[in-house]
Amino acid sequence: MASVTKLTLCLVFFFLVLSFPLTLSSPPLHLRASRNAPRFFSDFYRTTNNSKQFTASRYRYETRYFEQNLDHFSFSDLPTFRQRYLINTEHWVGPGRLGPIFFYCGNEGDIEWFAVNTGFVWEIAPRFGAMIVFPEHRYYGESMPYGSREEAYKNVTTLAHLTSEQALADYAVLITELKRNLSAQACPVVLFGGSYGGMLAAWMRLKYPHIAIGALASSAPVLQFEDIVPPETFYDIVSNDFRRESVDCFNTIKESWNVIASEGEKNDGLLHLTSTFRFCKKLETADDLSNWLSSAYSYLAMGNYPYPSDFLMPMPGNPIKEVCRRIDSCPDGTGILQCIFEGVSVYYNYTGTVDCFNLDDDPHGMTSGWDWQACTEMIMPDASSKNTSMFPAYDYNYTSDEEWCLEKFHVKPRPTWITTEFGGHGFKKVLKTFGSNIIFSNGLLDPWSGGSVLEDISDTIVALVTEKGAHHLDLRPATAEDPDWLVEQRTAEVELIKVWLEEYYEKRVATFDM
Amino acid sequence: MASVTKLTLCLVFFFLVLSFPLTLSSPPLHLRASRNAPRFFSDFYRTTNNSKQFTASRYRYETRYFEQNLDHFSFSDLPTFRQRYLINTEHWVGPGRLGPIFFYCGNEGDIEWFAVNTGFVWEIAPRFGAMIVFPEHRYYGESMPYGSREEAYKNVTTLAHLTSEQALADYAVLITELKRNLSAQACPVVLFGGSYGGMLAAWMRLKYPHIAIGALASSAPVLQFEDIVPPETFYDIVSNDFRRESVDCFNTIKESWNVIASEGEKNDGLLHLTSTFRFCKKLETADDLSNWLSSAYSYLAMGNYPYPSDFLMPMPGNPIKEVCRRIDSCPDGTGILQCIFEGVSVYYNYTGTVDCFNLDDDPHGMTSGWDWQACTEMIMPDASSKNTSMFPAYDYNYTSDEEWCLEKFHVKPRPTWITTEFGGHGFKKVLKTFGSNIIFSNGLLDPWSGGSVLEDISDTIVALVTEKGAHHLDLRPATAEDPDWLVEQRTAEVELIKVWLEEYYEKRVATFDM
Repeated sequence: MASVTKLTLCLVFFFLVLSFPLTLSSPPLHLRASRNAPRFFSDFYRTTNNSKQFTASRYRYETRYFEQNLDHFSFSDLPTFRQRYLINTEHWVGPGRLGPIFFYCGNEGDIEWFAVNTGFVWEIAPRFGAMIVFPEHRYYGESMPYGSREEAYKNVTTLAHLTSEQALADYAVLITELKRNLSAQACPVVLFGGSYGGMLAAWMRLKYPHIAIGALASSAPVLQFEDIVPPETFYDIVSNDFRRESVDCFNTIKESWNVIASEGEKNDGLLHLTSTFRFCKKLETADDLSNWLSSAYSYLAMGNYPYPSDFLMPMPGNPIKEVCRRIDSCPDGTGILQCIFEGVSVYYNYTGTVDCFNLDDDPHGMTSGWDWQACTEMIMPDASSKNTSMFPAYDYNYTSDEEWCLEKFHVKPRPTWITTEFGGHGFKKVLKTFGSNIIFSNGLLDPWSGGSVLEDISDTIVALVTEKGAHHLDLRPATAEDPDWLVEQRTAEVELIKVWLEEYYEKRVATFDM
Repeated sequence: MASVTKLTLCLVFFFLVLSFPLTLSSPPLHLRASRNAPRFFSDFYRTTNNSKQFTASRYRYETRYFEQNLDHFSFSDLPTFRQRYLINTEHWVGPGRLGPIFFYCGNEGDIEWFAVNTGFVWEIAPRFGAMIVFPEHRYYGESMPYGSREEAYKNVTTLAHLTSEQALADYAVLITELKRNLSAQACPVVLFGGSYGGMLAAWMRLKYPHIAIGALASSAPVLQFEDIVPPETFYDIVSNDFRRESVDCFNTIKESWNVIASEGEKNDGLLHLTSTFRFCKKLETADDLSNWLSSAYSYLAMGNYPYPSDFLMPMPGNPIKEVCRRIDSCPDGTGILQCIFEGVSVYYNYTGTVDCFNLDDDPHGMTSGWDWQACTEMIMPDASSKNTSMFPAYDYNYTSDEEWCLEKFHVKPRPTWITTEFGGHGFKKVLKTFGSNIIFSNGLLDPWSGGSVLEDISDTIVALVTEKGAHHLDLRPATAEDPDWLVEQRTAEVELIKVWLEEYYEKRVATFDM
């Protein structure tokens, strides 16, 4: 029963997001896909009302609040807001022994979700005598400006200060004040983050080197902007994840889109699709089904872990292998749509407890913070190649994205801002002589890995790449089923963090304070 | 006649600033001093209406305008504004040959003033085949948000976006767009700046290493925040500048404050002071005279150049030597106040053309942008030591500064923000392993030098210090009277910039683009 509840909850979150484009009048498929598909795990982070799993978690922390300026970079007369952060000082050796502070850069969701799902930090902290801090990103979870989510998400004016630079400044101010209060000014800070949080960790190390001595940026697609990597990167990697399991499977999926589209145009075609895919309510368009499938494939690729997991949906280990096994082992004579359904059920109904699926519980959806961020700063071009992708082909179309954002939020994106503020073009050259102590960890099965840093930049800005890892797998708790390559990746991370700390302690002894 | 006009103009600017505290009801002397005294050359930068000297300047440039977002770090629906910049491409070898871009980080004043007074950049650019760009700092000169100075300076809401981070972001966006328009993306950018502009140049190199390959930060007191250097630093250096010329002179000045104060308390004392110091109108308080003298001594120390100059006031070379010569050679029997008057006339009336001085032409003053910045981010503690300073002693009093800012601008300063955003504590240690290619140039006679970086931090973050230099002397045009140590300092700067560029070109050839 509990697992059904959780599953339903996940589906609700998922559908909430999926439903955004429906508020627009018939956008073309490629637009709908482009607003929908390349996302992080954001849809699963909105678990504010589901704190049960957190209180039952194996990690202990105290919840505190810190009064933050809403705008760090100007002096408008704006209200402050309460930023939530979780803290554990159980293993901290204290300021006298310069105990390190492990600081997770909270991303686009409830911070408790990240705390619970970032076992790596909890597991290694005691070894380092480290304090653990998980601050929540502004405009997510309980850290709402203007007193409530409703007020904070009201309009472009109230949402205006949901930006990555403001979030980084929150972290910088929080760390500084926290250290001051604990007389821990000299204690070194190490940053952690996965996905968008990984981007924040890397950027924070670059922008605030005086605040943190190093950063582990896991699955951080810091190069997925403008034309730095091809826009097809994401879907090409998802597609390769399927093709490497089975070319037949890849081809079946690739063929299925046309079958779905033509079926949708037939009399009673939508009814047929609805029943084949067991939707509770009749599909309104065939595109809705295509989007539903696309999302599943993308999440399967991100969550393509080597062991069973249920933090997104309950899934088996190597879930894409299982999807393709089901698709490929479809009995002769079974229709392609039935085969696709069998496959995608690995994602949507692995426990077999779902009777029917809901696509549009809430047609108006609830605006997610990430939707805003993706309409302002986080303009990450996406496209699907006719040849190398198994998804319906479409080109990147900035103009239609901009229109969507103007209509949805009355805001105009700034597509070149992130690279101006944080760099991107020539990242490698710049960082070769500037910056130090960043780990970019990636698993090549992760579709976001293509937008990250996959080779060493210098002796101290290094890439730890696993061939079979998926989206920030290294940050998850250790399990008995962890393959050697994952254990080795984590060991390498611990070793590098050790070196950063040792160097910091050595320099403190050797160097005059200035 | 022309020189009289210019002098009067300078005095007007000077008095405008000097008059701010007068809008308050009798603040204590130490407060008035603290709001007044440690300033950059800002008072002399407000020359928007005096463009004659610029058009007659020896430097040629085109004036252009760039549409900037008022807020780079949030998405409020704010108007854009036109940022002015001066550009010269005469000697630029173009994008094909990767011609460098020399970019001066405009500070708190009319950009033409800086362009005309930063001869060093103009003189070395041709040797490097470099383009020259002088962008204006927002809220100064012609670069006014909301259409006019009056509107921009109306209240806390309109002034809100006058911050250093927004200015740096303006520069980053401007450079990026400029390069894009010229297909000059691969051309290296070198930053220059003096005083606050030097702080901006150093911070920009730290925060935007992908935008600029190096920075010459001249007389940039980046450590003059919180408790990093003692608050007495500024006045101690001014005082030492006088003491090194003559201990008698130092002592006479140190004694004079009490004489002025007691004179002010006598019947007809203010009248006596007014006539001794030749004010056109009767002094209202003795403190006004003390502030008038303090400012002169501070500017004499900043502008203590080895040759005659008239960019602040017409002054002889080594003006403090001349002040002290006059004070010390006061005939026996002359009163101390008369001697002080003779001395300070080196600053206020070196040409001998001023009949009487005006202290409060405009008692309500015009708010300067720097007053706002000094009330928000630029909280640089100041104090005057009883023992080592020749000025009236006072302690640093943050609370009274805060009260002043609340009253004046209805804004609460953020005294720990600059060090949080840009670093400061442990600057040396942090930059030893992070960052590269910054020159901190200073002259030890400059009272701001005590808040800057005076020793090499690494092989590439270096201090070029001259014993006898004053406030950003190295950035001024070369003259026939330049002493060897100044020529050598500039040569060293050119050599370092050459190395930065050579390394950049080498790496471009050697490194794969990422």
